[in-house]
Amino acid sequence: MHKFESKLTGATSYVDPTKITGQRLVGDVCYAEARQVASYITPVPGGVGPMTVAMLMQNTVQSAENAYKKLLKMSWDLQVLPLNLQKPVPSDIEIARSQVPKDVSLLASEVGIIPEEVSLYGTKKAKISLSVLDRLKNNVDGKYIVVAGITPTPLGEGKSTTLVGLAQALTAHKKKKAFACLRQPSQGPTFGIKGGAAGGGYSQVIPMEDFNLHLTGDIHAITAANNLLAAQLDARIFHEATQTDAALYERLVPKIKGERKFSKIQRRRLDRLGITKTDPDTLTSEEVAKFVRLNIDPTNVVWTRVVDINDRYLRRITIGQASTEKGFMRETSFSISVASELMAILALCTSLEDMKQRIAKIVVAFDKSGNPVTADDLGMTGAMMVLLKDTLEPTLMQTLEGTPVFVHAGPFANIAHGCNSIIADNIALKLVGKDGYVVTEAGFGSDIGMEKFFNIKCRTSKKVPSAIVLVATVRALKMHGGGPPVSAGSSRKEYTEENLELLKKGLPNLLKHVSNGVKYGIPVLVSINAHAYDTPAEHTMIREAALKQGALAAVVSKHWSEGGAGAVPLAEAVIKACSNRSKFKFLYDLGLSIEEKIILIAKEMYGAGSVDFNTKVREMMRLLTEKGYKNLPICMAKTQLSLSGNPELKGAPTDFKLPVTDLYLSAGAGFIVAIAGDISKMPGLPTRPCVYDIDLNTETGEIEGLF
Amino acid sequence: MHKFESKLTGATSYVDPTKITGQRLVGDVCYAEARQVASYITPVPGGVGPMTVAMLMQNTVQSAENAYKKLLKMSWDLQVLPLNLQKPVPSDIEIARSQVPKDVSLLASEVGIIPEEVSLYGTKKAKISLSVLDRLKNNVDGKYIVVAGITPTPLGEGKSTTLVGLAQALTAHKKKKAFACLRQPSQGPTFGIKGGAAGGGYSQVIPMEDFNLHLTGDIHAITAANNLLAAQLDARIFHEATQTDAALYERLVPKIKGERKFSKIQRRRLDRLGITKTDPDTLTSEEVAKFVRLNIDPTNVVWTRVVDINDRYLRRITIGQASTEKGFMRETSFSISVASELMAILALCTSLEDMKQRIAKIVVAFDKSGNPVTADDLGMTGAMMVLLKDTLEPTLMQTLEGTPVFVHAGPFANIAHGCNSIIADNIALKLVGKDGYVVTEAGFGSDIGMEKFFNIKCRTSKKVPSAIVLVATVRALKMHGGGPPVSAGSSRKEYTEENLELLKKGLPNLLKHVSNGVKYGIPVLVSINAHAYDTPAEHTMIREAALKQGALAAVVSKHWSEGGAGAVPLAEAVIKACSNRSKFKFLYDLGLSIEEKIILIAKEMYGAGSVDFNTKVREMMRLLTEKGYKNLPICMAKTQLSLSGNPELKGAPTDFKLPVTDLYLSAGAGFIVAIAGDISKMPGLPTRPCVYDIDLNTETGEIEGLF
Repeated sequence: MHKFESKLTGATSYVDPTKITGQRLVGDVCYAEARQVASYITPVPGGVGPMTVAMLMQNTVQSAENAYKKLLKMSWDLQVLPLNLQKPVPSDIEIARSQVPKDVSLLASEVGIIPEEVSLYGTKKAKISLSVLDRLKNNVDGKYIVVAGITPTPLGEGKSTTLVGLAQALTAHKKKKAFACLRQPSQGPTFGIKGGAAGGGYSQVIPMEDFNLHLTGDIHAITAANNLLAAQLDARIFHEATQTDAALYERLVPKIKGERKFSKIQRRRLDRLGITKTDPDTLTSEEVAKFVRLNIDPTNVVWTRVVDINDRYLRRITIGQASTEKGFMRETSFSISVASELMAILALCTSLEDMKQRIAKIVVAFDKSGNPVTADDLGMTGAMMVLLKDTLEPTLMQTLEGTPVFVHAGPFANIAHGCNSIIADNIALKLVGKDGYVVTEAGFGSDIGMEKFFNIKCRTSKKVPSAIVLVATVRALKMHGGGPPVSAGSSRKEYTEENLELLKKGLPNLLKHVSNGVKYGIPVLVSINAHAYDTPAEHTMIREAALKQGALAAVVSKHWSEGGAGAVPLAEAVIKACSNRSKFKFLYDLGLSIEEKIILIAKEMYGAGSVDFNTKVREMMRLLTEKGYKNLPICMAKTQLSLSGNPELKGAPTDFKLPVTDLYLSAGAGFIVAIAGDISKMPGLPTRPCVYDIDLNTETGEIEGLF
Repeated sequence: MHKFESKLTGATSYVDPTKITGQRLVGDVCYAEARQVASYITPVPGGVGPMTVAMLMQNTVQSAENAYKKLLKMSWDLQVLPLNLQKPVPSDIEIARSQVPKDVSLLASEVGIIPEEVSLYGTKKAKISLSVLDRLKNNVDGKYIVVAGITPTPLGEGKSTTLVGLAQALTAHKKKKAFACLRQPSQGPTFGIKGGAAGGGYSQVIPMEDFNLHLTGDIHAITAANNLLAAQLDARIFHEATQTDAALYERLVPKIKGERKFSKIQRRRLDRLGITKTDPDTLTSEEVAKFVRLNIDPTNVVWTRVVDINDRYLRRITIGQASTEKGFMRETSFSISVASELMAILALCTSLEDMKQRIAKIVVAFDKSGNPVTADDLGMTGAMMVLLKDTLEPTLMQTLEGTPVFVHAGPFANIAHGCNSIIADNIALKLVGKDGYVVTEAGFGSDIGMEKFFNIKCRTSKKVPSAIVLVATVRALKMHGGGPPVSAGSSRKEYTEENLELLKKGLPNLLKHVSNGVKYGIPVLVSINAHAYDTPAEHTMIREAALKQGALAAVVSKHWSEGGAGAVPLAEAVIKACSNRSKFKFLYDLGLSIEEKIILIAKEMYGAGSVDFNTKVREMMRLLTEKGYKNLPICMAKTQLSLSGNPELKGAPTDFKLPVTDLYLSAGAGFIVAIAGDISKMPGLPTRPCVYDIDLNTETGEIEGLF
């Protein structure tokens, strides 16, 4: 069925395009029937005359025909924005500014999104309704490609840029329907060292300012919901500490106009406590005590507050020191917002109802008997959903060549699963349809982002990926071969001159990542992200080694300097790889013990010889198994700068011991986080953060120096 | 000049409507001229033919004529949404849900905003560009009406509701051009005790969910900018404490590709230090030390972090306790976001450039010699502007009757100046024009919001108000007369039955507020916000007393139960009052000493006999005078629940002593805050916050129980 909105009355109507045969319809139905049909289409008070009917029918038929044709089309009727390539390649911001993005409502209609599904945020970004999934539920999904990488240098190896360039190549040059799906970046690093994250060179998402700042407010909403939960948790500890059972009950279930009633969320807590009474006045004093006291252990609170800022002084703090809190202070911390479990939930949930159930299950603390206390116990599920409801809709933007991009969710790749949202990918897979392509992102190297993409995200979404694009650079491989540290602005000759020996020594890192991908039964395509200093011999060495290791293809990609045109060889390799049926398999069964799952990941993906669990971690594994959380997948938190847990170990170390130092439950996100090494959840600002270069031109309204 | 956008080419052009005389134009100009003129209007590559020219000219002439007519029109061609009044009046949420708001882009065009000036956020709210001010700069401002109140009960006396009802009456019933300008509410109280703040009954802003949650993200942006400044402040204290002058300089002014350069913001700091050198390599070591060391005194930091949540545990905290901060911990606090000086700046600034200059001036701390350290010294001005640039645009929404509303900025009324933004009012004054009305808000009683509206906001904006609407209720006056405490849900007979004696005892509170208004030389109109329990005799008593005290009119207003129709008498009184020229004057000259200004406000507005300044406050007055801040207006921070500083003192106390316990500088906002009594900048959550009733229906997406 297709939905139409009448331009005359604003009424919506539904037409089955398979039952409409074009112009003939108007002539074939008699007036009485037409009038009846028309009344469904555009109900007008007082009925309609024959001329109106004819016109309405004509409009409807025409719309239905157009819609039907659109549905069956192999490629989009999409206006490609031409690039004006310059050498040398100008700065990212200059390139982005030189392109005028098209109106996002035009882009939405070009890719088959109907106006009712679009919420504009200005003219360059829009939230897209989940109702697309329902409207297109009978469409066959497109091919699903994940972009991962080798172990990166601290500067990154161009995974986002490759992703954007590949999408530009597929749609603008190979005339395929293709969507790029990216994470929303945290604002913290934007003002710290890193700058923006919208791709680079001639492969970018535009406007980059919108991409990097606020976007459509999702991270702000997550921050608000996360911190409201924290405020309610501490307030509850305080109120329980300062009131009797009876006083708490009187306040929690007050008499309003003579009547006492449990709210819906309170009835859920009663259910969990096994109390089936519905009349608040009939609870025994023991039942009242059980109901009103969460008995949170202040030394065992796991929920922390967040800000989307690099604020090192909030890493460890003491709260509750005002006299109004009567001495009930405790130590806690702030994390950066994208480390919030809510961000992982947003990225993994598949519907509003799924999000609600996940939020209800969040474990915020343990009580004095060691039992988990949930967000639902604190009465917070509904309030958090109300704050988060709009975050579920992905944001539509565009590449430099005017092809579609979804930006949605941004869980950290080191301490969370590091992938953009399932919802964005799912909508994109339906929009591109059977012959289309969705290119999605997995943070950091194959050992981190890709492993979690497969074993956490794909397991949740039940989507089967068709190919892996593994991004490699000559620079990173030389570093793995023993080259000097790579930092911004420096240009050591190891990296500016051909050095096949150094490159050869670094190849094992690439080979390990290739074989990591092969283990999942999916074709691995190595994309060599070309740099001006690279030589053909260096590219050939990488290509040959990759193919020998089992990569289906290895191509040089020049999307950074040439846009989509430079990624055509990569796009062609992707198209070819996707023509085969995927033989995807998971790395581990959920039924294994927590310990076994961690060991499997460490050995198979990192090359570890053994895993060292400390006593605290062993105790936590026991507790989580006892409380019924054993069957969750594992979200490893490990440095991205080495295959091992030690950022100094370059190349492809083997047989090392991986220390697991901490373990915690993300019951809402649906995984157990295992911390291997020192992982900070709160970055800091350097002595000279980017802020010193950033300005707003108050005449033009343009941002200067942000990227 | 009027701006037009060609439907054919998307090009914009400007036409002076006074020079167009209609249809004749096409005939009068010869082809060559027409071609030339047409090329200005719609530049087409390769030129245009005669038919095209004729069509383009015709379109242009038609548009110009329409625009010209519109400009001269006395009232808007505005689609009024009819109300379906019910008795008894249903809940706010039921009323709001029963009305279908019109598309905000339609509303924008109805009130003369052109599409280029509208940034849609979905279909029910839109940000409006400041370029309206420039386009309509030759329009005469409309009449400017401020809605203030008597001393309220804790439940409020319906100021927002009156404001919305009056705007509905003026536009929907009296066919005047009228805008309602309101503050954006904090999300903190929404989830605490208070619920929403979008008016009530049949006088509301819709959709109320959008109004109360996130809106267009302004408060989130303020939170982000406020906290980025705090993070940079603490990071700077840390970096200065752990590095030598030379190391700091090396990092702050790094050699990039062999060159060392000061950034623009660093050059401003050098200017303030009196260092005129531009080559970083020529600074002496003394100059380097002056430049790199802000020497912030950690015990004299005045900038605090914020969250838009009622989080009592953050009232007093210790930060920097992680080992990475090497023991440089300090005590500080979080305030609620709307208490941020940035919110006051947003409400008071008049342009992007004005905002930038105010942000640069913010004093965040004092150094070890007692000199102010500013946001600009920390290099933060540009970065904060980049985060805040969109906040400057007010958000357009609508009333239940489809009339226009600007929602913009929401500084707290107790610790800040409690008025919505100057920018929103200014745009509205231009849009309604000479014969129109802008109704704006001043928080709490006339002693608080109205005093600050006149002496801070109007002084900054240079706008002259035409009338004061003073909202009073029988309930509040009875409370002032000695009635029992007023709380939600309770229904004591003092308030449900006629009691002229109690009412009479409470009248002095009203009379004091009337005379407060009269002091400014502006007509005072008392609006009695009618309640079902009120009797005609009670209304008469209030009316007679008000008129006797100097009010120009006193009318009963039934907007809550009847919408705009119920506020027609009030609207007529407003129209009449505004027909006279305003004789507005300020309460005090800026040239007086800080002490004199505070005493004047306390005596004239509150009825105090004297003011008690403690030693700390006296010292601060001395310091601020010495540092050149003496001539700023005063922002009094006082309880709203009494004319005095003691919330228990009802009625109209006189000759009391007002204690001023603290004083601080808001150099960016441009005022000095004087704290009279215990004013919390961070509310807390009660034992049973609203969250227990709030839910999201995941089938319909509708919010339940929020209001």
